[in-house]
Amino acid sequence: MSNKQRIGIVGGTGYGGAELLRLLARHPDAQVVAVTSRGDAGTPVAQAYPQLRGVIDLDFVAPDPNNLRDCDVVFFATPHAAAMHDVPALLDAGKRVIDLSADFRLRDARLWAHWYGTEHACPELIERAVYGMPELYRSSIADADLVACPGCYPTAIILGFKPLIDAGLVDLDHLIANAATGVSGAGKSLKPGFLFAEMADSFKAYGVAGHRHLPEIRQVLGDLSGSAASQIGLTFVPHLVPMIRGIHATLYAQLSGQADLQALFETTYANEPFVDVMPPGSTPETRHVRGANVCRIAVHRPGDGNEGNTAVVLSTIDNLVKGAAGQAVQCFNLMIGAPENQALTDPGALP
Amino acid sequence: MSNKQRIGIVGGTGYGGAELLRLLARHPDAQVVAVTSRGDAGTPVAQAYPQLRGVIDLDFVAPDPNNLRDCDVVFFATPHAAAMHDVPALLDAGKRVIDLSADFRLRDARLWAHWYGTEHACPELIERAVYGMPELYRSSIADADLVACPGCYPTAIILGFKPLIDAGLVDLDHLIANAATGVSGAGKSLKPGFLFAEMADSFKAYGVAGHRHLPEIRQVLGDLSGSAASQIGLTFVPHLVPMIRGIHATLYAQLSGQADLQALFETTYANEPFVDVMPPGSTPETRHVRGANVCRIAVHRPGDGNEGNTAVVLSTIDNLVKGAAGQAVQCFNLMIGAPENQALTDPGALP
Amino acid sequence: MSNKQRIGIVGGTGYGGAELLRLLARHPDAQVVAVTSRGDAGTPVAQAYPQLRGVIDLDFVAPDPNNLRDCDVVFFATPHAAAMHDVPALLDAGKRVIDLSADFRLRDARLWAHWYGTEHACPELIERAVYGMPELYRSSIADADLVACPGCYPTAIILGFKPLIDAGLVDLDHLIANAATGVSGAGKSLKPGFLFAEMADSFKAYGVAGHRHLPEIRQVLGDLSGSAASQIGLTFVPHLVPMIRGIHATLYAQLSGQADLQALFETTYANEPFVDVMPPGSTPETRHVRGANVCRIAVHRPGDGNEGNTAVVLSTIDNLVKGAAGQAVQCFNLMIGAPENQALTDPGALP
Amino acid sequence: MSNKQRIGIVGGTGYGGAELLRLLARHPDAQVVAVTSRGDAGTPVAQAYPQLRGVIDLDFVAPDPNNLRDCDVVFFATPHAAAMHDVPALLDAGKRVIDLSADFRLRDARLWAHWYGTEHACPELIERAVYGMPELYRSSIADADLVACPGCYPTAIILGFKPLIDAGLVDLDHLIANAATGVSGAGKSLKPGFLFAEMADSFKAYGVAGHRHLPEIRQVLGDLSGSAASQIGLTFVPHLVPMIRGIHATLYAQLSGQADLQALFETTYANEPFVDVMPPGSTPETRHVRGANVCRIAVHRPGDGNEGNTAVVLSTIDNLVKGAAGQAVQCFNLMIGAPENQALTDPGALP
Repeated sequence: MSNKQRIGIVGGTGYGGAELLRLLARHPDAQVVAVTSRGDAGTPVAQAYPQLRGVIDLDFVAPDPNNLRDCDVVFFATPHAAAMHDVPALLDAGKRVIDLSADFRLRDARLWAHWYGTEHACPELIERAVYGMPELYRSSIADADLVACPGCYPTAIILGFKPLIDAGLVDLDHLIANAATGVSGAGKSLKPGFLFAEMADSFKAYGVAGHRHLPEIRQVLGDLSGSAASQIGLTFVPHLVPMIRGIHATLYAQLSGQADLQALFETTYANEPFVDVMPPGSTPETRHVRGANVCRIAVHRPGDGNEGNTAVVLSTIDNLVKGAAGQAVQCFNLMIGAPENQALTDPGALP
Repeated sequence: MSNKQRIGIVGGTGYGGAELLRLLARHPDAQVVAVTSRGDAGTPVAQAYPQLRGVIDLDFVAPDPNNLRDCDVVFFATPHAAAMHDVPALLDAGKRVIDLSADFRLRDARLWAHWYGTEHACPELIERAVYGMPELYRSSIADADLVACPGCYPTAIILGFKPLIDAGLVDLDHLIANAATGVSGAGKSLKPGFLFAEMADSFKAYGVAGHRHLPEIRQVLGDLSGSAASQIGLTFVPHLVPMIRGIHATLYAQLSGQADLQALFETTYANEPFVDVMPPGSTPETRHVRGANVCRIAVHRPGDGNEGNTAVVLSTIDNLVKGAAGQAVQCFNLMIGAPENQALTDPGALP
Repeated sequence: MSNKQRIGIVGGTGYGGAELLRLLARHPDAQVVAVTSRGDAGTPVAQAYPQLRGVIDLDFVAPDPNNLRDCDVVFFATPHAAAMHDVPALLDAGKRVIDLSADFRLRDARLWAHWYGTEHACPELIERAVYGMPELYRSSIADADLVACPGCYPTAIILGFKPLIDAGLVDLDHLIANAATGVSGAGKSLKPGFLFAEMADSFKAYGVAGHRHLPEIRQVLGDLSGSAASQIGLTFVPHLVPMIRGIHATLYAQLSGQADLQALFETTYANEPFVDVMPPGSTPETRHVRGANVCRIAVHRPGDGNEGNTAVVLSTIDNLVKGAAGQAVQCFNLMIGAPENQALTDPGALP
Repeated sequence: MSNKQRIGIVGGTGYGGAELLRLLARHPDAQVVAVTSRGDAGTPVAQAYPQLRGVIDLDFVAPDPNNLRDCDVVFFATPHAAAMHDVPALLDAGKRVIDLSADFRLRDARLWAHWYGTEHACPELIERAVYGMPELYRSSIADADLVACPGCYPTAIILGFKPLIDAGLVDLDHLIANAATGVSGAGKSLKPGFLFAEMADSFKAYGVAGHRHLPEIRQVLGDLSGSAASQIGLTFVPHLVPMIRGIHATLYAQLSGQADLQALFETTYANEPFVDVMPPGSTPETRHVRGANVCRIAVHRPGDGNEGNTAVVLSTIDNLVKGAAGQAVQCFNLMIGAPENQALTDPGALP
């Protein structure tokens, strides 16, 4: 056990934290030594999460830096604007940090403050953070000591647009990302709209005027296309589905040239362990990725010609796995030099 | 009772038929006298639909024209390609027909045959049919003896695009209708994909290559814009939501001019009893229209300018009410000169 | 309109209040004149409940007695321990009160204090209250000025046991009520366990050690059997189902004699407008009563003899209608001498 | 790989088959070499189950004995009355068989014929079969060449009653098992009642007159108590919950003596790897066992004395894991001398 990385999880009562515990419990190179919770300190982790009875034998501890002093790697599974207060000291102490929250995703601290409603606590560290999407930044992640894991929507949307943008095939002024999510993306927020009685048997859009994931998507699509984020004309409308897990993005792009889209996608992701391009004509379902660290993608060119030059990409992930904890473990594997798929090979249970 | 219209319902075991029975049960000007079912003839209607115990005291009869001879008005709630075989004789016998199926929606019989996989049985009657959307064709419906009720997706999508197209404000080459439906739109089809175990807790697109409602929507948007249907560049991607009822359409259009979109929508529908333009910033939920004959609409101009000239319209209906049986009763009211909202004023139950 | 009863609803933001608004909106003898809400005073009712846009044109007012001074009848749709503070003054002012909460259901003020955790504010009024279950106390309700509407579980369970107890057929020491509820029975409580992510796709028992509805059921079963409540040996285990509405009670009783149970149930409820005894062998589903003011019941004598003398009763209601607002309107109809089924005849929408 | 057991799965398109594939895919001592399907022979397994893309690289083969000739162990995940036709030849060929269906569960061939509606094809083999519940028959399973895996309801119910019956504490004439299941227990049956539109947002009992799992439960409870099955007075009422997976049994028994029930349960299962007795007062939820091979149990003595001598046991399993495929793999592990928990240690994903 002496060679295992000692892991701390900050914010262990949320869904991201629980999913980290599930994945790391069987990771041969990781040993979770501290799980913090402001509200549940002193009670067993398995009391909050009975499915972990017999799997995790730790009590929650207070989110006190001292409780993380024995860790090699600290995962933050906190709401936004929490990690940024603790990360500087942890980095100074030589620990590596994987942040599942939004704190280090945007390179522009002013933009971050605009969308998150507070000043950034350590803008000087933003540049040091690597965006934790291995399909784009694999080698940088391996060397990083601060990884900013992407949001769930950005993961599905960026992986879906990437082949088209890499190939310079689409009009960047008129991209549309129509996306739908299960409610676990909102965590355990006690808001009326997330009550079963309010959201079961219903469907709605939300955040039409602007969602916090929009600037993050624009920034990365800008990187991919060699443009400024402000040049990416993207309309993003998220929707809430009465389901627990899953992100489904339906992407629309105007093609500016001819290409075999299926071949383009298959080639782009031929060597990616966690992006699965489905056969032509497929419509991936969120249950096909439930519990698994995989993004399943299909690309379509609909219609009989009347639809003109529109490409449609369908991109699905589990928001808690490839959209959060799984992607974080994938980054962790890269950082410690383990096989990238360590502890991430389980297919989900279906139905 | 002698002044009531005597009603026949063909295809009474489906969800459209059940919803007609619910609405007509309390209609002061209607008396249901015959409900047909191929499989359940001879058994009480209330055995198939226990919620109608004490409300409907009829047995299903075989779908034999003779069983409809006492009717003044016949509603078809059948799968496609059924009504077209019986309608000619019913019209000859002086009855008025309201068809909830697809048989008389498309004006082009060849296009119909292409999409529905069989030749049309009475193409000469197609021209006689009036498209049963009162917001577009109110006066023609009043005089019609054959009404072709719109599909559920077309109802939500056409009502959502109408103000923009009427005003000549949008680029007709790049319309996008991203829509989501509850499963009751598929009726009681015994297909694996509609099993609870297959579709609960999941979300997917379907019919990306082409859905039967697409030519119907193009035809009507063509009418609205004064263009041929073939000139309407519409991409339509439907999705399946784990819910029973509801259609939610998220419409994207490129604006070609400036306008106060909220005012435009409110003005367009100011006098419509069953189209409700929500306040600015609203996100209508399908549960807000569940069980009710209403289309709730919101219009948005998202973002901070980077999204350019994209308008987003959110349009919701109950697929079985404003998308089927309710709209059919609305047409019926117009046809018999009753108040248009007769038997259609109940708000739905929520939650 | 001058002959209509002027109605006040206290606690209008909850689900019981919303359901009252739905039912009373179309009641020919009622005019809702005041709807109170502590948190939403000053905002339109239809903003909280968009399905009521165009149906209710009132703003919420503060729960100030002055705002109820014009009412003839006041409905309380509040959490427990609220109505008891306001009812005395309302009765003094000559108003009639229909309380959907628990405040006046138990005749024993000490027992009430034990289960509800606070002293009763007006124990002297408890005796004046009539238990609002028309099938048991119809004539007293008609004359009452204070009606204590039953809880949702008690309604389903008492109506299910009543024929057996009336006939003296069962062992009162070993009654079992295994019941299941949709989550709307908990109202809009912001508790983690009622979040969609926590209760969807799962099932559990709760309150096994003792649920507040237990003493209420025992009291009424005692009345029916001529025993003290303390003599009723009832085990009651409630369960939470991932659905919005509905109560389903599965009742087990040891028969102490022989009887034609089907005939017994049919005779007992032959003249009841809102209790529907299903045909032999039926298994009523909660969706069969969704949105409707009806209790659907089936009685079974399972097995081949090995199960001995056990009778099984299945009893279903919509917790918000026959289990709350609908039953309250049924009482209101009796109180004002209107037809008992006024505004209560709609079948629910299914599916 | 030469030391791995070569596995055949008959009936691979059903949910039990898919779950076997998920569990065996990572089993170090198993190599799935043949998966049969009558309807899908020739197509890739991963086409029917996209979540298995990259995990299983086999095509379905026809259910022809020849296709199983290379197997060491054959699992049957077929509907009842299928395995019994193929098992004799497989045993003759020296293979070991683990049958997840009902064919070899009942020791009385006449009783089997009564409940399953057809004569048993090889009654002479029934006695050779060992009932595959390790908690009761561990050593016999290890030596068996034919294992009859228990039904899902029997697993939850028998494990729940076992401590009470072992201790001789309960009245065997008045046992009640009120149970609820997710719909995956019905497999992919194309029956209207299993459609999403028919069972979502609803709850019902079914099979009240007699369910096929009843004689199986009686047989085993008889074994436990030293009585004939016919002496077990058990009333069993199953219910259908709008959820995918999970069994929840609420068991009622009349105590005939005094005991510390919590201690009794903890002692009984102290050494069982897959039965988890929860702390006093717990109410296990089906999601707590979702995807995991575990039975979580709580025991209660409700009330304040008025409920008399009734014990209530809450017992939950995942019907597809501990109720089917997981228990089958547990038996397989015993049969091959592997650690009993091999490939069965994953906690489920929650939420």
